[in-house]
Amino acid sequence: MFSDVHKKAGVTYPQGFQAAGVKAGIKKSGNLDVAVIYTEQEAAVAGTFTQNAVASAPVRASKKVVATGMAHAITANAGCANACTGEQGEKDAAAMQDITATALGCKADEVVVASTGVIGVNLPMDKMETGIKQAVKELSTEGSENAGKAIITTDTYSKSCATEITLGGKEVRFGAIAKGSGMIQPNMATMLCFITTDAAIDSKLLQKALSEIVEVSFNMISIDGDMSTNDMVIVLANGAAGNAKITEENEDYKLFKATLQNICQELSKKIAADGEGATKFLTISVTGARNFAEAKTIGMSVAKSPLVKTAFFGEDPNWGRVICAVGYAGVPMDPNKTVVKFGDITVYANGVGAAYDEAELRKVMEAHDIVIGIDMGEGDAKADIWSCDFSYEYVKINGEYHT
Amino acid sequence: MFSDVHKKAGVTYPQGFQAAGVKAGIKKSGNLDVAVIYTEQEAAVAGTFTQNAVASAPVRASKKVVATGMAHAITANAGCANACTGEQGEKDAAAMQDITATALGCKADEVVVASTGVIGVNLPMDKMETGIKQAVKELSTEGSENAGKAIITTDTYSKSCATEITLGGKEVRFGAIAKGSGMIQPNMATMLCFITTDAAIDSKLLQKALSEIVEVSFNMISIDGDMSTNDMVIVLANGAAGNAKITEENEDYKLFKATLQNICQELSKKIAADGEGATKFLTISVTGARNFAEAKTIGMSVAKSPLVKTAFFGEDPNWGRVICAVGYAGVPMDPNKTVVKFGDITVYANGVGAAYDEAELRKVMEAHDIVIGIDMGEGDAKADIWSCDFSYEYVKINGEYHT
Repeated sequence: MFSDVHKKAGVTYPQGFQAAGVKAGIKKSGNLDVAVIYTEQEAAVAGTFTQNAVASAPVRASKKVVATGMAHAITANAGCANACTGEQGEKDAAAMQDITATALGCKADEVVVASTGVIGVNLPMDKMETGIKQAVKELSTEGSENAGKAIITTDTYSKSCATEITLGGKEVRFGAIAKGSGMIQPNMATMLCFITTDAAIDSKLLQKALSEIVEVSFNMISIDGDMSTNDMVIVLANGAAGNAKITEENEDYKLFKATLQNICQELSKKIAADGEGATKFLTISVTGARNFAEAKTIGMSVAKSPLVKTAFFGEDPNWGRVICAVGYAGVPMDPNKTVVKFGDITVYANGVGAAYDEAELRKVMEAHDIVIGIDMGEGDAKADIWSCDFSYEYVKINGEYHT
Repeated sequence: MFSDVHKKAGVTYPQGFQAAGVKAGIKKSGNLDVAVIYTEQEAAVAGTFTQNAVASAPVRASKKVVATGMAHAITANAGCANACTGEQGEKDAAAMQDITATALGCKADEVVVASTGVIGVNLPMDKMETGIKQAVKELSTEGSENAGKAIITTDTYSKSCATEITLGGKEVRFGAIAKGSGMIQPNMATMLCFITTDAAIDSKLLQKALSEIVEVSFNMISIDGDMSTNDMVIVLANGAAGNAKITEENEDYKLFKATLQNICQELSKKIAADGEGATKFLTISVTGARNFAEAKTIGMSVAKSPLVKTAFFGEDPNWGRVICAVGYAGVPMDPNKTVVKFGDITVYANGVGAAYDEAELRKVMEAHDIVIGIDMGEGDAKADIWSCDFSYEYVKINGEYHT
């Protein structure tokens, strides 16, 4: 579904979008660190934000933009999260909007802003101003790759995605860039995802779709259980595809939503697989639960268990830790009904360990992608959680002293 | 309060208690692995147990003993948890009770049983039988140290504690042994704590006191957030001190309860400090919360954060991760009212990082014991959580492949 050609185009694959990423000197590494995404044609905007009570200044500013339902641009930087920065932080986030708006000729409240990186440090606004102006100059339909690189931090690569559908005979395109939720050295995790589409859709419906989709995509990831101050998912829909505007939950809406969900799930998996220090991509696939909420709770309990995560790092088929984490999830369960599988191999059933072929199980454990199947035997509900293992590298990345 | 002389006596410090620890060959290391604690005089018994839905067979058996309110003995082993062992596990736990009862001349339902170690493996009952019989033969008032050693697993040392009070002119003694909640290689965490006292107290009051105390002691520890299938705290009170039996919540009860709470908190701190791979003992001291539950929730959120734990391993004064974990605890809070201190040094206040003397802060971070102070500025409630850092060693202990 997601061809490599399209991925390269990323957020500029849909009609009418331009992007750029430049080096503004905010990252210590000197790498690309300021991104601008722009649509001349006004776009419906939707967003979901961190639930952390300590939200960053850009999160608060961008919530206001999303509330208007309309935007023209996203300006983002890596290297400094502008979180826990008090009044100055509020002013700096507003200034990011002002500088971008002036350079683009739009209004400040039409600019979504996002920051990721160190918290408790003020943005170097001189560098930011130069960077934003340069990025606006460099805006192009070839700019998604640089924009994607400009928002990453400890990610090992920039995540992107693109696809298209047909709505009423019109080709409607989608593109996205995202950065991972591995916690950013030295201070913060931040998950950022910017999605563009040239679909015409009402902003309230766009928000409804996104809010529902986030529950089954980005909210199904667990790297280390920490939720950052800066997490943000933004969708811009500029209508350039010329499809009949989606204003109700018709077939077009369903297809649109399904496509957006695929994109969000694809990026969620990439983010989980690229968790800090990750050597394994784990899918915790809970089935047979009484309802989705319980399935998710059980899956998250397993995904967050340091014991489970270190076991998979060690390629140890330690079903005891898995059933233990299921047991303390807080969901009523019957250990005798629960079945645990690693890949296709049943390792626990009927309240006890199952007999299995050790060589076959070894193959499962040695693979990079491992599915931990947990059937509760209670109902029909299910949930997949995407996670990764816990390695020495994670401790190294997050335990090194940075000043 | 807890003198070294008394600690050595441990569970045999109170009048009328004997103990032993023997080598039964259950631990692969060949170390002491079966413990028996005995009081000829009938004892009131109270217990609290893991909330994990996947409770081990000995947990289920011991709950029944505690329900009777009376017991004569505790038999425990390390090296095999007898969890996820199905019907055979139930039979084996019952057999541990039977063998002990026969050897001691008491009834099977007067014997508390506890196991810790590998899960999913059946107890080697021949070794267990020989071990229990030998332990009963070796019972003595000098046996607490060996009993303490026989219940440890990845603990680096056996935890014990003893003290005395005066009730109505009578000396009333308390003793305890405990093992840590670092997760036991290769499968399970188990926290076991056995407390003896020669106080005379009604078993229902004893249970009430213990249940309340556990909330502010053992339930305030977080090593890695995992809750085992085997956790158990047992108190035996045999009345040998000859004090007027405590049957109501009078002054004697209050002093008794305060003393029991001190013991439980002392052991909780020791268990946290000896968490697997721990290099730091962290006290997360939350103050100014609206109520105890919120204070505890906030403290646990910080204690469980892998980012906070790795930061302290790296001696990184990373207040951003602390305030972030406070923010996602799920408790309404105002980032501008919250104050974060490391030791006596304020690192975050008024929504931003505070100015501090780097050399002074370095001293705080380099110490083994560190207090993370978090004042919410909302009310008068407080809670202390005891935890430890997250090291390479934790990953090593739990990530090595064991078969």
